[in-house]
Amino acid sequence: MVGFPLSVLGSCPAVSLLLEGINMRFNPRRLYVVFRNKFLAVAFLFLLSLVPGFALTPAVHHPLDSMTPDEYMKTYNVLQAAGKLSEKTIFTSILLREPAKAVVMAWKPGQPIVRKVDVVLLTEGKSYEATVDVSAGKIDSYKELSRDQAPVTESEMHGYDDILKKDPRVLEALKKRNITDLRLVTCYVTPAGHVDLPEQTPGRRIGWGGCTYAANAKFGWDREIPGIFFVVDMNEKKITRLSDYGVVPMPPTTSIYDADGGPAIPGTKPFLIAQPDGPSFTIKDGEVNWQNWKFRFRLDPRVGPVVNLVTYNDGTKDRSVLYEGELSEMYVPYQDPEETWNSHVFLDAGEYFINTGSGGIIKPLLAGVDCPTYATFFSGTFFHENGTPYIRPQLACLFERVTGDPVWRHWDEDTYAISGRPTRELVLRTVATVGNYDYLFDWRFEQDASITVGVGATGILEVKAVKDQRADGEVSSAMKVKDAKGDTYEFGQLVAPGISAVDHDHYFSYRLDLDVDGTNNSLMVDKMVPYKLPDSSPGRKWIWAMKPEMPKTEGEAKLDVSIEHPAMWMFTNENVKNSLGQTTSFEIMPGETGISLLPPSEWPQKRAGWSEHNLWVTPYDPNQRYVSGTYLMGSTGEDTLPNWVKQNRNIMNTDIVAWYTVGFHHVPRPEDWPQMPIMWHTFSLRPFQFLPKNPAMDLPMVP
Amino acid sequence: MVGFPLSVLGSCPAVSLLLEGINMRFNPRRLYVVFRNKFLAVAFLFLLSLVPGFALTPAVHHPLDSMTPDEYMKTYNVLQAAGKLSEKTIFTSILLREPAKAVVMAWKPGQPIVRKVDVVLLTEGKSYEATVDVSAGKIDSYKELSRDQAPVTESEMHGYDDILKKDPRVLEALKKRNITDLRLVTCYVTPAGHVDLPEQTPGRRIGWGGCTYAANAKFGWDREIPGIFFVVDMNEKKITRLSDYGVVPMPPTTSIYDADGGPAIPGTKPFLIAQPDGPSFTIKDGEVNWQNWKFRFRLDPRVGPVVNLVTYNDGTKDRSVLYEGELSEMYVPYQDPEETWNSHVFLDAGEYFINTGSGGIIKPLLAGVDCPTYATFFSGTFFHENGTPYIRPQLACLFERVTGDPVWRHWDEDTYAISGRPTRELVLRTVATVGNYDYLFDWRFEQDASITVGVGATGILEVKAVKDQRADGEVSSAMKVKDAKGDTYEFGQLVAPGISAVDHDHYFSYRLDLDVDGTNNSLMVDKMVPYKLPDSSPGRKWIWAMKPEMPKTEGEAKLDVSIEHPAMWMFTNENVKNSLGQTTSFEIMPGETGISLLPPSEWPQKRAGWSEHNLWVTPYDPNQRYVSGTYLMGSTGEDTLPNWVKQNRNIMNTDIVAWYTVGFHHVPRPEDWPQMPIMWHTFSLRPFQFLPKNPAMDLPMVP
Repeated sequence: MVGFPLSVLGSCPAVSLLLEGINMRFNPRRLYVVFRNKFLAVAFLFLLSLVPGFALTPAVHHPLDSMTPDEYMKTYNVLQAAGKLSEKTIFTSILLREPAKAVVMAWKPGQPIVRKVDVVLLTEGKSYEATVDVSAGKIDSYKELSRDQAPVTESEMHGYDDILKKDPRVLEALKKRNITDLRLVTCYVTPAGHVDLPEQTPGRRIGWGGCTYAANAKFGWDREIPGIFFVVDMNEKKITRLSDYGVVPMPPTTSIYDADGGPAIPGTKPFLIAQPDGPSFTIKDGEVNWQNWKFRFRLDPRVGPVVNLVTYNDGTKDRSVLYEGELSEMYVPYQDPEETWNSHVFLDAGEYFINTGSGGIIKPLLAGVDCPTYATFFSGTFFHENGTPYIRPQLACLFERVTGDPVWRHWDEDTYAISGRPTRELVLRTVATVGNYDYLFDWRFEQDASITVGVGATGILEVKAVKDQRADGEVSSAMKVKDAKGDTYEFGQLVAPGISAVDHDHYFSYRLDLDVDGTNNSLMVDKMVPYKLPDSSPGRKWIWAMKPEMPKTEGEAKLDVSIEHPAMWMFTNENVKNSLGQTTSFEIMPGETGISLLPPSEWPQKRAGWSEHNLWVTPYDPNQRYVSGTYLMGSTGEDTLPNWVKQNRNIMNTDIVAWYTVGFHHVPRPEDWPQMPIMWHTFSLRPFQFLPKNPAMDLPMVP
Repeated sequence: MVGFPLSVLGSCPAVSLLLEGINMRFNPRRLYVVFRNKFLAVAFLFLLSLVPGFALTPAVHHPLDSMTPDEYMKTYNVLQAAGKLSEKTIFTSILLREPAKAVVMAWKPGQPIVRKVDVVLLTEGKSYEATVDVSAGKIDSYKELSRDQAPVTESEMHGYDDILKKDPRVLEALKKRNITDLRLVTCYVTPAGHVDLPEQTPGRRIGWGGCTYAANAKFGWDREIPGIFFVVDMNEKKITRLSDYGVVPMPPTTSIYDADGGPAIPGTKPFLIAQPDGPSFTIKDGEVNWQNWKFRFRLDPRVGPVVNLVTYNDGTKDRSVLYEGELSEMYVPYQDPEETWNSHVFLDAGEYFINTGSGGIIKPLLAGVDCPTYATFFSGTFFHENGTPYIRPQLACLFERVTGDPVWRHWDEDTYAISGRPTRELVLRTVATVGNYDYLFDWRFEQDASITVGVGATGILEVKAVKDQRADGEVSSAMKVKDAKGDTYEFGQLVAPGISAVDHDHYFSYRLDLDVDGTNNSLMVDKMVPYKLPDSSPGRKWIWAMKPEMPKTEGEAKLDVSIEHPAMWMFTNENVKNSLGQTTSFEIMPGETGISLLPPSEWPQKRAGWSEHNLWVTPYDPNQRYVSGTYLMGSTGEDTLPNWVKQNRNIMNTDIVAWYTVGFHHVPRPEDWPQMPIMWHTFSLRPFQFLPKNPAMDLPMVP
């Protein structure tokens, strides 16, 4: 018996491509099972190398599947043939255009699949929007964008370094700081989220930025040259304004950690965790099937994993829970008095990372660190600025997990007996590295029929150099001020001598197109309110009662977590009842979260006003996918969730979508430096009167 | 080579007792290592059986260790010799009396340990309080309680069944319901938490209760006979009032689940999780040492696990974090208009479970369900009503866990390299079964120097029979009412035909005697507040800033989680600075939680007013351990946290204690029936400016 671990297959480029092409890496354990003798294995490899288009070709099994490399090339070819591309054209965004929901719901396996692609091009400063029908090989629509702009690209952010650092104003600022060797200086531009600067007139492509200096550097993230801030016309590749906020010495560089891992603390004993027979899930034509759950997912360059068509089998049939769930936008505003720093307002999904930062929002996962070694990994297809595709491995992982916790348990007083069941869960994980920060995104499917959505924030803090070497004694106004009343206000915390990590927030908007037992749902808000009992009540005079309320329109459906006024938020199907006559629901159950503290008048809030509430509900609209707008570059916030809901559309007994905000404020600490320990925030989708009983009652006695 | 798994040792009573006597079960894997040949193993067992008092005798290694069986017997003997016990005396509470903190801190290994015990006796309705010095073999103090009363006992709660069910009023109520075979009827009493009933005069020992009927029963927890409520004088063993709230038919009994575990869903593959070389922690004289953490714990019949002397080693020395952490009280008020149900207001730790419900708040854990099979289990010693001790195995477990998550990770844009470290954690777990509910209590020690405290609620709902078989159509007022305005108020939800699960809350008060780098700490409240920038600011006009405030007195230190007014809560040592000149702190970081919705005027709130805020801080007072009071039976709430803080004592730069409230409201669902899937709530203790950097940077590349 001979086994071929994945590395062997990986060394055969054709096979490797094929394996990746179907957007799935086989679990090597299963290959061990397949190849029971050497001859069969070699024969299999040989045959595979001969028939690259057969059986394992990248395939579209379903209208919502990821774009294949072939589809990227077809998109390029159609646009090229139509003369829409010049030598200077940059593909800034290439995204699957989802078919209308009704089309997807009506589609049956075996039927033809019409595939369309939304493309945004940037040619010499002008932005173009195209929809390409790759099935028909034609352009559906094409237009130059007037007010909207193509998202920023890698070459704009990091491609002007040579021009920027030779600008006389930059040279002068560098000279003031005794920086002369320009080879160690790197200047960059990031999109200037609208704050009504004089330069920010409609249509102008404005960025802002600064420079880093790598002298004596061991660690890149503390090398920002303090005080230099410039505004750039990204089309003209010219600095329109440079503001020098004053010279502060570069801080000592951070000692780099042992990148190869330190020795274990003496006495650390090994763990053995394995699934010797492989995982319990199956994947057929892209559909994942695990325990009672079924779902699909694709990897999208803009929003990451898109989970689709999630159903739960109640023992009699698969029942719809979630048509689609994905991140819609991220928002990370920094909170510092100086423009250099408060200009850091990142809308990472739509404004930054569609095609910057070495490719898309999803980055490779490290087996044994980000996911267990026994996880199954999936590759994804992304695109270069010239429109051609590339396949990157290990962009998602799927694994079962046993945490050692029971799903239920009870000690029975009558019989002195303990009963209970251990549990396992299924985790779908990706990671977004957006510059300094890394976010793990989890979709965890549970045996109690709930889904836990998790965001784990780790990576590196953004830090500014300050003259302060210590936090005691006299502290500079860059870190701390006192007002007339003697109250202290702090803007960041020292994480090392001369290095302050600036206060900021993290917000994530999740688009949750729940379809509980069908498309037509209503939002039910079950408030818990104090309830006065009659005076004749012999003991208690007050209880609380649950007061159900159903918001009629999207304008009424802006909800916040409140410790004083708690409520449960449900997606309810008024047309379907369980065996007890209860309308079936799924609850959106918040975890620890936060909302924005800035006034709505503040420009970043006009673009990310969704961060002002924890839950919003709108009617389903295929054109409303991105809470801060489809086009963010230069946007002043018209196409945003808070504006959508001004229409005050009906949300009762119709197809509705939830927008849930995960948020937290981050006052950094030295313990977050030079890498931040992961901080998880979660929320759950929980069945409520969806099932007739706890579905985990009869699980086996082993997890 | 021969191994003796634990079951072999367990079959030898002497050895088994010895093993349990040191409050620790050996990990069988380590025994496998020890006994390398049959002869040695047999010789070892033989020797052990000859020298029961040697080496493995139950021992007190430290002033804060659990009481030993020997100490229980000494306590009994001292009281017996002093003539304090009669044939009718019930030991209602026997608890270690902790030495003064200064004494504990000054104590060194090898020095004598003075051990004292607080005892509460109930003799023919009179309550007595004694402190016994078991080291000196004498009574320190002894008095009859005047207003305070001994906690309720098992024999009071379930010992009057025969008297109660033969009361003519009960017989009449049963007859109305066509219940005649009294052998299937069980009537019980629970302590009547003060609500100012006419019977509740000082000194009277008042309970209330009802009856269950086991005809055709498969499941005990839905057999409450609806509508029967009586008040009982527990000393006189007489019903003072019976109120019949009306006949409702007994509901169909719930089909019992497969108690032996069902078959796995087809395709479920096994997991292999083991620590072949045993755990990485060591325990020496009761001190647990794992990674950089050291701590002790004891198992207390009233509050469960008490974690002590938690230190974190920063690479140079062990630094104090937490002198003591434990649950102080639990509070579970039910919310129903009918007295039968709103009388269910449980203060489980102090009022109920010291010596009821088959013994103490801590119940045995099931290996493979409640804890991983490779966990190390610990026994504990509790007491019978006659004062004699008994040892119960598997009351706590300690295990390492690898979840597959990284402790930190980063993808570096510059180098296209991923770095990161997998992590493991150490979990100390117990379970409290308090009647119907089971609560898992976790103390999780992390490699990033934080501690996560978790409460997992599972077990069985309390349900009332209602005439409603379905939730649609006409619904009875026992479940739902409409007020004059047409607003609906619901009191519970159907979980099965004729079975309504009543709305209720769960609150847990944690006593956290943090001693960050020493005993003198201050509470720092780091508020995040909007901060206006000067009009001249070129882009942003508003940021938020961190505004540190230090409450001076306990009266100012009542804090709530707020989404609109967020803050970080710190225990800060103003006398100790880290290398950056920052005062060292630990943050108390809330998770999802709740506070009471009842007005403070409501009687249950007078006894459990601590549930009205998420965080309270008081100066350390050895007599203030229990937030609802030391004596709860009959209490009207004088000795409670909200009253303590009326003294408005200084909490700055002194020894202070935090009281953190975990709370949640529970509107049950059929999915919680017949056993509730576990719901976890957590909070964290996180280092803040305590360490100079992330302590998990240099962990090894395997977890």
